[in-house]
Amino acid sequence: MVLKAGFCDLGFAKLDIDRQGRRGFSEVVYSVGKTRAQLKEIVHQFFKNNQDLLLTKLDKNTFLYLKKSFPKLRYNSLGRIGYVLNKKRPKRKGLVLVISAGTADIPVAEEAAATLEIMGSHLKRIYDVGVAGVHRLLRHMDLLKKARVIIVVAGMEGALASLVSGLVKSPVIAVPTSTGYGASFNGLSALLTMLNSCSPGVTVVNIDNGFGAGYFAHLINK
Amino acid sequence: MVLKAGFCDLGFAKLDIDRQGRRGFSEVVYSVGKTRAQLKEIVHQFFKNNQDLLLTKLDKNTFLYLKKSFPKLRYNSLGRIGYVLNKKRPKRKGLVLVISAGTADIPVAEEAAATLEIMGSHLKRIYDVGVAGVHRLLRHMDLLKKARVIIVVAGMEGALASLVSGLVKSPVIAVPTSTGYGASFNGLSALLTMLNSCSPGVTVVNIDNGFGAGYFAHLINK
Amino acid sequence: MVLKAGFCDLGFAKLDIDRQGRRGFSEVVYSVGKTRAQLKEIVHQFFKNNQDLLLTKLDKNTFLYLKKSFPKLRYNSLGRIGYVLNKKRPKRKGLVLVISAGTADIPVAEEAAATLEIMGSHLKRIYDVGVAGVHRLLRHMDLLKKARVIIVVAGMEGALASLVSGLVKSPVIAVPTSTGYGASFNGLSALLTMLNSCSPGVTVVNIDNGFGAGYFAHLINK
Amino acid sequence: MVLKAGFCDLGFAKLDIDRQGRRGFSEVVYSVGKTRAQLKEIVHQFFKNNQDLLLTKLDKNTFLYLKKSFPKLRYNSLGRIGYVLNKKRPKRKGLVLVISAGTADIPVAEEAAATLEIMGSHLKRIYDVGVAGVHRLLRHMDLLKKARVIIVVAGMEGALASLVSGLVKSPVIAVPTSTGYGASFNGLSALLTMLNSCSPGVTVVNIDNGFGAGYFAHLINK
Amino acid sequence: MVLKAGFCDLGFAKLDIDRQGRRGFSEVVYSVGKTRAQLKEIVHQFFKNNQDLLLTKLDKNTFLYLKKSFPKLRYNSLGRIGYVLNKKRPKRKGLVLVISAGTADIPVAEEAAATLEIMGSHLKRIYDVGVAGVHRLLRHMDLLKKARVIIVVAGMEGALASLVSGLVKSPVIAVPTSTGYGASFNGLSALLTMLNSCSPGVTVVNIDNGFGAGYFAHLINK
Amino acid sequence: MVLKAGFCDLGFAKLDIDRQGRRGFSEVVYSVGKTRAQLKEIVHQFFKNNQDLLLTKLDKNTFLYLKKSFPKLRYNSLGRIGYVLNKKRPKRKGLVLVISAGTADIPVAEEAAATLEIMGSHLKRIYDVGVAGVHRLLRHMDLLKKARVIIVVAGMEGALASLVSGLVKSPVIAVPTSTGYGASFNGLSALLTMLNSCSPGVTVVNIDNGFGAGYFAHLINK
Amino acid sequence: MVLKAGFCDLGFAKLDIDRQGRRGFSEVVYSVGKTRAQLKEIVHQFFKNNQDLLLTKLDKNTFLYLKKSFPKLRYNSLGRIGYVLNKKRPKRKGLVLVISAGTADIPVAEEAAATLEIMGSHLKRIYDVGVAGVHRLLRHMDLLKKARVIIVVAGMEGALASLVSGLVKSPVIAVPTSTGYGASFNGLSALLTMLNSCSPGVTVVNIDNGFGAGYFAHLINK
Amino acid sequence: MVLKAGFCDLGFAKLDIDRQGRRGFSEVVYSVGKTRAQLKEIVHQFFKNNQDLLLTKLDKNTFLYLKKSFPKLRYNSLGRIGYVLNKKRPKRKGLVLVISAGTADIPVAEEAAATLEIMGSHLKRIYDVGVAGVHRLLRHMDLLKKARVIIVVAGMEGALASLVSGLVKSPVIAVPTSTGYGASFNGLSALLTMLNSCSPGVTVVNIDNGFGAGYFAHLINK
Repeated sequence: MVLKAGFCDLGFAKLDIDRQGRRGFSEVVYSVGKTRAQLKEIVHQFFKNNQDLLLTKLDKNTFLYLKKSFPKLRYNSLGRIGYVLNKKRPKRKGLVLVISAGTADIPVAEEAAATLEIMGSHLKRIYDVGVAGVHRLLRHMDLLKKARVIIVVAGMEGALASLVSGLVKSPVIAVPTSTGYGASFNGLSALLTMLNSCSPGVTVVNIDNGFGAGYFAHLINK
Repeated sequence: MVLKAGFCDLGFAKLDIDRQGRRGFSEVVYSVGKTRAQLKEIVHQFFKNNQDLLLTKLDKNTFLYLKKSFPKLRYNSLGRIGYVLNKKRPKRKGLVLVISAGTADIPVAEEAAATLEIMGSHLKRIYDVGVAGVHRLLRHMDLLKKARVIIVVAGMEGALASLVSGLVKSPVIAVPTSTGYGASFNGLSALLTMLNSCSPGVTVVNIDNGFGAGYFAHLINK
Repeated sequence: MVLKAGFCDLGFAKLDIDRQGRRGFSEVVYSVGKTRAQLKEIVHQFFKNNQDLLLTKLDKNTFLYLKKSFPKLRYNSLGRIGYVLNKKRPKRKGLVLVISAGTADIPVAEEAAATLEIMGSHLKRIYDVGVAGVHRLLRHMDLLKKARVIIVVAGMEGALASLVSGLVKSPVIAVPTSTGYGASFNGLSALLTMLNSCSPGVTVVNIDNGFGAGYFAHLINK
Repeated sequence: MVLKAGFCDLGFAKLDIDRQGRRGFSEVVYSVGKTRAQLKEIVHQFFKNNQDLLLTKLDKNTFLYLKKSFPKLRYNSLGRIGYVLNKKRPKRKGLVLVISAGTADIPVAEEAAATLEIMGSHLKRIYDVGVAGVHRLLRHMDLLKKARVIIVVAGMEGALASLVSGLVKSPVIAVPTSTGYGASFNGLSALLTMLNSCSPGVTVVNIDNGFGAGYFAHLINK
Repeated sequence: MVLKAGFCDLGFAKLDIDRQGRRGFSEVVYSVGKTRAQLKEIVHQFFKNNQDLLLTKLDKNTFLYLKKSFPKLRYNSLGRIGYVLNKKRPKRKGLVLVISAGTADIPVAEEAAATLEIMGSHLKRIYDVGVAGVHRLLRHMDLLKKARVIIVVAGMEGALASLVSGLVKSPVIAVPTSTGYGASFNGLSALLTMLNSCSPGVTVVNIDNGFGAGYFAHLINK
Repeated sequence: MVLKAGFCDLGFAKLDIDRQGRRGFSEVVYSVGKTRAQLKEIVHQFFKNNQDLLLTKLDKNTFLYLKKSFPKLRYNSLGRIGYVLNKKRPKRKGLVLVISAGTADIPVAEEAAATLEIMGSHLKRIYDVGVAGVHRLLRHMDLLKKARVIIVVAGMEGALASLVSGLVKSPVIAVPTSTGYGASFNGLSALLTMLNSCSPGVTVVNIDNGFGAGYFAHLINK
Repeated sequence: MVLKAGFCDLGFAKLDIDRQGRRGFSEVVYSVGKTRAQLKEIVHQFFKNNQDLLLTKLDKNTFLYLKKSFPKLRYNSLGRIGYVLNKKRPKRKGLVLVISAGTADIPVAEEAAATLEIMGSHLKRIYDVGVAGVHRLLRHMDLLKKARVIIVVAGMEGALASLVSGLVKSPVIAVPTSTGYGASFNGLSALLTMLNSCSPGVTVVNIDNGFGAGYFAHLINK
Repeated sequence: MVLKAGFCDLGFAKLDIDRQGRRGFSEVVYSVGKTRAQLKEIVHQFFKNNQDLLLTKLDKNTFLYLKKSFPKLRYNSLGRIGYVLNKKRPKRKGLVLVISAGTADIPVAEEAAATLEIMGSHLKRIYDVGVAGVHRLLRHMDLLKKARVIIVVAGMEGALASLVSGLVKSPVIAVPTSTGYGASFNGLSALLTMLNSCSPGVTVVNIDNGFGAGYFAHLINK
């Protein structure tokens, strides 16, 4: 067994500094439910231990607070991701396509896109090509065919993932979003749709989990 | 107020013989939960009162039992509908299209189709054109455009209704089916998908309610 | 296949300018989850491409913001709909009836009514005729019988749709609302009631989706 | 405090022989999940302790098995209730009305009716008067007005309870049934409808709990 | 059929002024989802038509707004009920007991109590006698036995209704409340508990519906 | 780290023979979903490795099949548990009380009781003391006070756990059962009740998991 | 029967002053849903009757309000617990371990820890050792083995409880938290995970109920 | 647009013979809900069109029926998959690991494994390494590190996927199974656990969808 001590104990957090070696990327910090002081101390340790830094679901004001202490910290405001990259990462050659069904799904799509960029994957975006006007999607058949992996982000009925998957050879990662109202039940509708896809080649992540989709797509793309 | 007595009291049932005049079609009998003796007496009264007869969710053995007493009774075995038509009905000219996503959805689609035929609507079927191979649907664009009303029957993720609606001018009635397993939750997945359709022009009936969709389509087609 | 390019690409949105021809009415904009800047650019493109404009779930302040740039934009404050009509639309002769169970359901009913008016259907309203005092509804039997289509908007137990449908020949579109508390579960109760209607001739749209009901009713009425 | 020992310990059951005095009626036996041997011993003790006997949800074969040992035991096969009455009970003068929405709801309605008869309430039945043909109900206005208590048994959308309550001065006990399919979710739809009744004067019991409604109605009628 | 016109049409509302005669008490106004202007006009019509007035779920500020125009309007701030009584009502002799499991359930209990007082029932309160310390309840056995009807208001696990019912001859109306957190799911836990009561003699109203329980108890008490 | 190889690999199963040392009791076999051949091979390995043997949810016919090969195997038919004890276990002195609300809950209670006996805890049973007749429970106050741990098994509304906990100093393990119908939703009602207990000192296991409660109670009793 | 009067009646609350003797610890006050005036009067009575005082889910501002009148009142701000200890409590020797999966779960873990400290148990904390980096947990094997009881607090997928239980001989109390988003459904995901633990020796409390876990652990530790 | 006619119309089915070219593998047939006659005709067309054949969820008797007409058809009885491979497929060099938490999860794991074998991926199995005895998994660290993709199949609490993902660099596809009882709610518990995984690098397919996981893993492995 090769598990090593490999963590940095702050009491309220045990930073998994072994993770970069073990998994290929540093621990990613989920910002919600942590105090500003905790986040500051965590970021401080990441810098000290020379780790990649990725903070998800980070609200803008907390970013600005952290920015004062860590001028290198950068922010993707649409995807609500804070990040610093300490090392040159090799660019992956495979193309990852990030597709959104509607304009309201873009923040989640951007969370995926930002994750891919930070991790080093080559990506393109196709936004607002939901099934209500399928010709908008079909116009991008060339791009769809070139992609090594495709991420489909959709709320409401979430039908787009099945449709895309039916057109391509590459794996499709479906991200349900909480876009919608009434019987969308905050994304449950899109989640169930995607889990029940009649088209093989689709897997699903949590509602609004753009980061998880980007991370997984990068693992495939490696 | 014009409500009249207009029913025939059997104790266990009050046949609404006023319905043909009031609503344009006789009372339709939901066969589940009724004993054979009750169904026999009900059918007897329908004949006596010169009513159209439509029995939904009728299992084959009960049909055969009733057939002995009422030789005119006919049966659509795929749609599980028993029926007798006493009068010449005018054929509606508008075309109703009944579309199924998969082969497993055909029984529910046939329940809709049988209802339309008995009520007097002109109809065509397009079966097994789910979103996993969208070219199968797109090949029928001419028919899709000609239809006055379209019924889309789909289980699993139920994405077909939105896709069809996005291609046509006519109203789409979506019927979720219980086809599927796991997180389809007996049709809940398809039901939510259809209720959250991002394409306007879609309404929804109960899971597996092919009859209701056929009935409603006929009302539009009148 | 007749699908054409037919869209206008803004990056964050692909306006489906082909839709007026393909479906009989322009793309309708769901305002929630779009930034003001995005909405402004979208409205700008609609004007430029000479499209009908309909913005649903538009809050008043965003309307006022858009109004400054587009003086022709109008607003139905009860139904929260922004709209501009560029062309003379023929008035449909068939009557659409919009019925609400209670006073608290009126905003959703008005969303349906505004949609019908903008699309060009003739309509009348009957509000606050819930089943707790059924004589209020029965007094309008003449109007009920004249309608080509009926929209029934109801929250809480949502029983009104079945009752209305049982009295008429015309199709009934049921709109569950989130009116209520406790076990109404934000409209789930009314939604299930309407899906399980024992009266044939009822279809259902999403909770609070007055727009969808109005749009569908207009399609029938054409 | 007046709580007394007042029970008879069989190991697997502690018969509450104090209940007749404390609550006005003996313990009622829920038959499901008990072995035949257990039921036989329980019935034996009821006889020995001179208690009223009421066995709910009793299937016919188990009744026939018990009947061999206890010839006085009687059975209401529609309501699936086994019972023996040892004493003359005074007849209550108030009228209890048992109403069912459909024929398929009759078994649950009969469970209520049998309970009322055994406990000594005067009752009348009105079956199959669901909202799809409201004139069938309105024809019984005289009876509706005379009732001291009304039990309304309905599955599917369960709308009948609100409608009845809106017409009368007396309290209405609503019993949702599992009649229906798809989105009726085994009675959940009717249960939610009844809990959200917009008409005051309605309370609800468990799905298919005809016994509970009958028992409660009798308590009011005393 | 004796249904009469009997309503007052305000456009946004149809006041059921026939209800006092038909049901024994005027229409009760659910205040949520109505604008101040609508409520003012409704109250105005109630005064003009000499009706009892009862406004439920009325927030304090709206009451103060209405109070300016209608000085006779009174307010029960715990139960959030506005009311005016125009006529002398006979006091009912039967005792109604309103019991709460915890202190946090008191607002709902007071909604029931206020309703009973306004309708004219004699009542007593026993608050904070939940099952965690059952001796607090058992000390009130005398009062429990005297009651004609008992209302039990409880959140969290809602076990109190069954316990009370097991001790008395009178009917118990159970009101689940949204008190609690986590797996109480806003009152669902207490609702299910009460619906599944193993003690016969319990019926249930909607979560937090103190008014409905009070109204129903008064109907029994008449 | 002290984790050792400590398992026996059968391909379809990896028997955790390290568990007796690590956790104080051998691996327990959940019988459902395993073929007879698999169970036979597993039991064979347990004998060979000199392990305690406990097979839960074992149906009688499979037991009889296994009995032929392993004559030492014994069976608790109420609790559906197969077992062999190879070694003398010390008897725990602390008393564990197993209480059931109804007779129908006894199978789950017996699963707990059998587990306790096999593991070596001293136990007593009190069955059928549900809250509908609370005096039956209160008669056993002496026993309740003596217990080191109490297991409360209840279906339907599951209120008994809170009540028992409110009377004693010892920890209470609540086991919801699937006893009930309708809105008991196969034990969900009892589960939620127990999770929301207003009496501190209650923890909960899975629905029908008598084994888990017995195992946990034994851990406390050690 | 030994139940005594033993409570102090404030009208809105009946303080169970018998509880210290009966259960070993005073009544614990759930602060939510009580007015400041009610809390002040309750605290006053606790002091007067010489009771231990523990106020859960107490927000900081209310604490500061109470502090003015009761200077002895202390506050654990992370666990949101107010408390006063009037008597010397004996320290329990057994070790209770409080483990959290993530930093965001610490408030709930601290509620458990504060409860244990106030009741007199010896405890240690291990925070942020979730399954994404299992070596962080395995480094604490010595401590895990020493513990008499272990509390595991985890949100999101809640997998940590099963993992810990699989490593130790002691009982594990699992506390699901509402940490997470999307399909965590406010803690439902972690709750179900923990209830279905494949490792025996785990029981569960309500979502976010750190207090309940601490209280129960102390009962075991006595 | 390159979509071609590319299907074979049987009326009840439209075989997507374009799929092999478009997506890299023929259409896969979901056997449930199709009649034997339909399946026979479908298989016939697959042979005629020289397609790969994969029939999922195929029960043994139907396989034997088909086998008579198509002697080349083969069957994986654990995974319930019927198949014929017409062409030599290149073997993929990357290793896919199929891991099951328990023995009862093996049928679903085998569905994944069979799919991988038929599609041409190299695979290894590790079965019964659930978190209750984590050392069984940790013994396979070498294999875990070598895998290009890992499929984790688990029911009950489904915690294994997060644990595995936390140890490796490769992507993990999680398959929840319906193994379990009570609050596993037929796989919902495991599904939610996996969707909420705190370890990035996990995606999820439908409950019991071993085929979907195998298909997706093969797409990555290409």
